[in-house]
Amino acid sequence: MSEATVILQMICPDRSGLVSELAGWVAANGGSIRHADHHTDAGAGLFLSRIEWQLQGFGIPREALPAAAKALAERLNGQAQLHFSDSLPRVAIFASKQSHCLQDVLWRVQSGELPMQVPLVIANHPDLESLCRSFEVPFVHVPVLPERKQEAEGVMLDLLADHRIELAVLAKYMQVLSGSFLARFPEVINIHHSFLPAFKGAQPYHRAWDRGVKLIGATAHYVTEDLDDGPIIEQTTVHVSHRDEVDDLIRKGRDTERLALSRALRLHLRRQVMVYRGRTAVFA
Amino acid sequence: MSEATVILQMICPDRSGLVSELAGWVAANGGSIRHADHHTDAGAGLFLSRIEWQLQGFGIPREALPAAAKALAERLNGQAQLHFSDSLPRVAIFASKQSHCLQDVLWRVQSGELPMQVPLVIANHPDLESLCRSFEVPFVHVPVLPERKQEAEGVMLDLLADHRIELAVLAKYMQVLSGSFLARFPEVINIHHSFLPAFKGAQPYHRAWDRGVKLIGATAHYVTEDLDDGPIIEQTTVHVSHRDEVDDLIRKGRDTERLALSRALRLHLRRQVMVYRGRTAVFA
Amino acid sequence: MSEATVILQMICPDRSGLVSELAGWVAANGGSIRHADHHTDAGAGLFLSRIEWQLQGFGIPREALPAAAKALAERLNGQAQLHFSDSLPRVAIFASKQSHCLQDVLWRVQSGELPMQVPLVIANHPDLESLCRSFEVPFVHVPVLPERKQEAEGVMLDLLADHRIELAVLAKYMQVLSGSFLARFPEVINIHHSFLPAFKGAQPYHRAWDRGVKLIGATAHYVTEDLDDGPIIEQTTVHVSHRDEVDDLIRKGRDTERLALSRALRLHLRRQVMVYRGRTAVFA
Amino acid sequence: MSEATVILQMICPDRSGLVSELAGWVAANGGSIRHADHHTDAGAGLFLSRIEWQLQGFGIPREALPAAAKALAERLNGQAQLHFSDSLPRVAIFASKQSHCLQDVLWRVQSGELPMQVPLVIANHPDLESLCRSFEVPFVHVPVLPERKQEAEGVMLDLLADHRIELAVLAKYMQVLSGSFLARFPEVINIHHSFLPAFKGAQPYHRAWDRGVKLIGATAHYVTEDLDDGPIIEQTTVHVSHRDEVDDLIRKGRDTERLALSRALRLHLRRQVMVYRGRTAVFA
Repeated sequence: MSEATVILQMICPDRSGLVSELAGWVAANGGSIRHADHHTDAGAGLFLSRIEWQLQGFGIPREALPAAAKALAERLNGQAQLHFSDSLPRVAIFASKQSHCLQDVLWRVQSGELPMQVPLVIANHPDLESLCRSFEVPFVHVPVLPERKQEAEGVMLDLLADHRIELAVLAKYMQVLSGSFLARFPEVINIHHSFLPAFKGAQPYHRAWDRGVKLIGATAHYVTEDLDDGPIIEQTTVHVSHRDEVDDLIRKGRDTERLALSRALRLHLRRQVMVYRGRTAVFA
Repeated sequence: MSEATVILQMICPDRSGLVSELAGWVAANGGSIRHADHHTDAGAGLFLSRIEWQLQGFGIPREALPAAAKALAERLNGQAQLHFSDSLPRVAIFASKQSHCLQDVLWRVQSGELPMQVPLVIANHPDLESLCRSFEVPFVHVPVLPERKQEAEGVMLDLLADHRIELAVLAKYMQVLSGSFLARFPEVINIHHSFLPAFKGAQPYHRAWDRGVKLIGATAHYVTEDLDDGPIIEQTTVHVSHRDEVDDLIRKGRDTERLALSRALRLHLRRQVMVYRGRTAVFA
Repeated sequence: MSEATVILQMICPDRSGLVSELAGWVAANGGSIRHADHHTDAGAGLFLSRIEWQLQGFGIPREALPAAAKALAERLNGQAQLHFSDSLPRVAIFASKQSHCLQDVLWRVQSGELPMQVPLVIANHPDLESLCRSFEVPFVHVPVLPERKQEAEGVMLDLLADHRIELAVLAKYMQVLSGSFLARFPEVINIHHSFLPAFKGAQPYHRAWDRGVKLIGATAHYVTEDLDDGPIIEQTTVHVSHRDEVDDLIRKGRDTERLALSRALRLHLRRQVMVYRGRTAVFA
Repeated sequence: MSEATVILQMICPDRSGLVSELAGWVAANGGSIRHADHHTDAGAGLFLSRIEWQLQGFGIPREALPAAAKALAERLNGQAQLHFSDSLPRVAIFASKQSHCLQDVLWRVQSGELPMQVPLVIANHPDLESLCRSFEVPFVHVPVLPERKQEAEGVMLDLLADHRIELAVLAKYMQVLSGSFLARFPEVINIHHSFLPAFKGAQPYHRAWDRGVKLIGATAHYVTEDLDDGPIIEQTTVHVSHRDEVDDLIRKGRDTERLALSRALRLHLRRQVMVYRGRTAVFA
């Protein structure tokens, strides 16, 4: 299991012979396929494929693979994404005051469950600095005043650039990123503390209690400019009863938030998620 | 388990000593308590209690119990509901064309899981008549034309009265009951094919597919004039994936609908549900 | 979704290029792949593949496909199974006295959820005859006396042969089929009322209650001579509490049994299950 | 919610009038009941009750309550346990090399989810010392050599006595405590990494993989001398598939272990669990 693999994600217009063409390309270059998953969205006329094969012994050298994948995608009139399992993406975590998601993600990185590195935690409050220190992770406090939000986002974008961050994870960041931020840094995963599309927006647990629901949930999704409307990666739920106060919903919710976020993150990092037309295919 | 019990539900303003007062009243009359559940809604200042005891040997005779419970409620400035486990409520089921919920409820009644009798099935389409016949349950077809809905509802209300129906169950009835109907017959349980408050209204599975959710659900609730906003009794969910088309969501949803409806119905029939302030306490 | 498809299952020794070879074979014959799933069991050195493509327009005619698949399998030193989605397997259901699984399967067949036909129900008790009649399904009562079990199984085997049965489903049959029966008719799916390997054998709900577990379950599996040890297809669980008596476990268990059995059956019928080395790969 | 409460647990022979007698005793002393839960085990002829009321304003002073509860229990021929919600039990955590459960419990104590204090972590390996230090929790390494186990347990018992420990939690301790240890310190909760009674004993994930199960689980239970046979508090499960290797089962299992253990611990600490006859009633 420890050997490095290549993961190729391909999206292209559907037609006959695509599985054969992709697998044939891997085989022709001497690749030994570990996993091959495909999905056809008939309505959209799209073909999605994820193929993973052993890096060692593959005919195309690592440094030439991006160009080769691009050429293959052009031939299929599609788009390719290439990933090497032994390269650990540089991920920034955005947090606020609550520790449960940040702590959970950092622990999973440390224990090897999440193949990524965390060169940066950004928080709009100083509370979680010591937690980050205990994991030996750099922490930067960037206060976000409502009237100076643009300026704060500018500071953050500079930090992301300076640290060569590839993905941002909003681990209960509790702030909305502006459209101009997302235009410049679009790769963002968020955990929302409700079973979307129920209880979009603020204070979902309070509203869930008011409504008297019997289940609460959490949703991990890619962030888009339309708040809470991005492509969903993972959703989890937990039972509640009339005995649960809002505080109990918040407490129970923390567990379901952590599970949804960490599962989504692992799926993303292993390139098991493909996004298209506002939705995801998850090859799990 | 087969011995008859008395179930008393009481809602009254909260104060000290209520558990003692209720249990003391049962004990003073020689009652042997099987179950006693209580809930205090501190915000609302309300106390809710459900006590179940053996009918046999109880000091107050069956026919005198309603008046005694009423007197007790008045002393507590509250409201009491009394039920005898050996009396089978007369329940009408409303259906349309889909058989899964109707068939499931009828089978559970037949097998003894649901302590009720079904003297009447009302449907706005004729499709399910033979199903009802196989269960030896009377079936009445009441067509509902949009422009003559009031008239149709009048026919239904007469049927409910003629058959001395105590509860109506909307088993995928797919029609909205008017406020005036509910004013005259308020005891109605519905199964909605989404995880409320997500996807209120029509075609929830289509909208769930469009949104790309990873879980779908069903909600059994008491019907109020505000569509899909009534007190929730039970909610269930099931996982879906990108491989599931709308038809698969509908198919998977049937199972979760049946479970939510039958559980809610059993909880209601055993008087384990108490409704207050638009929500429920479920003593399960 | 209504167009007929061909489903090819292949198991063979693992080596490089197999996905390409299989998909290439389909493409070379003009097939348009709908689903392609593969699994490599590295420890066993085995490659498993399920490919589904449109029958219409495929270069090899339907009647020639079995021989073509066999030739392909021989080339790969493996074994192929071929299925056409528009052919409805002839399935016999074995039952005893309990109706819940039988009724559920028959309803799902009737509603189109399970692509199969039921030319025969065999039961060792006469109780479920009228249920079968309401579904217009032939019912045969074959009493099984302990001392004349071999004789009864002989009658059953004759019935299976006479009705050209391809699969038997034990829907709470409550009898153990002998090794000699299974040697002559090996394709059998059973529903066991526990979360195997917990509570193998008789009276699992009673033993679950005695043990004080907080979850009960059901397991749908292929039948082998070692009782309750066959390859598992699907498992489900449901929560129980101290309030649940054995009768409640039995009641709650019925729902989880029905779900596990019907899901397993659908997976089997759509050829999403592949069995090898006492276990299954389920491409769901 | 922050006000201190008294929690009384009572087990006694069942007879009429017990709810009234217990609630009456609380009311007679001016207590305002927050929660009252009861259970009758008809087969065992036992009555179990848990009553929680506000400490402030109660007629019997705190220091006199133990004697009063004892007198009440004697009158009912039963046994009482008394707990004050504002007293934080002194809990020792036993660990080995794996961090996930220890870290999770410590984080939940720190965040206020688990009302307890941790004056001591005992481990038979030194690996988790720095983790404990980051939570400012004392860590003692007590090596356990097979041939000198009795000696090691003696050291542990001394440590428990010195730190006035009331409860031990085995957070993946991976060692069996001897009967003589348990005789001297019987209050122990363990997390077992299987859905008991399936896969008792060693290496449950390996055996689960071998068996090809579709669900794995975890069980939190009180420890008795019969390994893995103690009263069960909480069980959780998670789905697995043929794609999951043993390592994946171990990884997925960590999440379900943490949930089962932390839920069980919270239920225990809030005195929602009552143990009798090898089983538990959980008032949740």
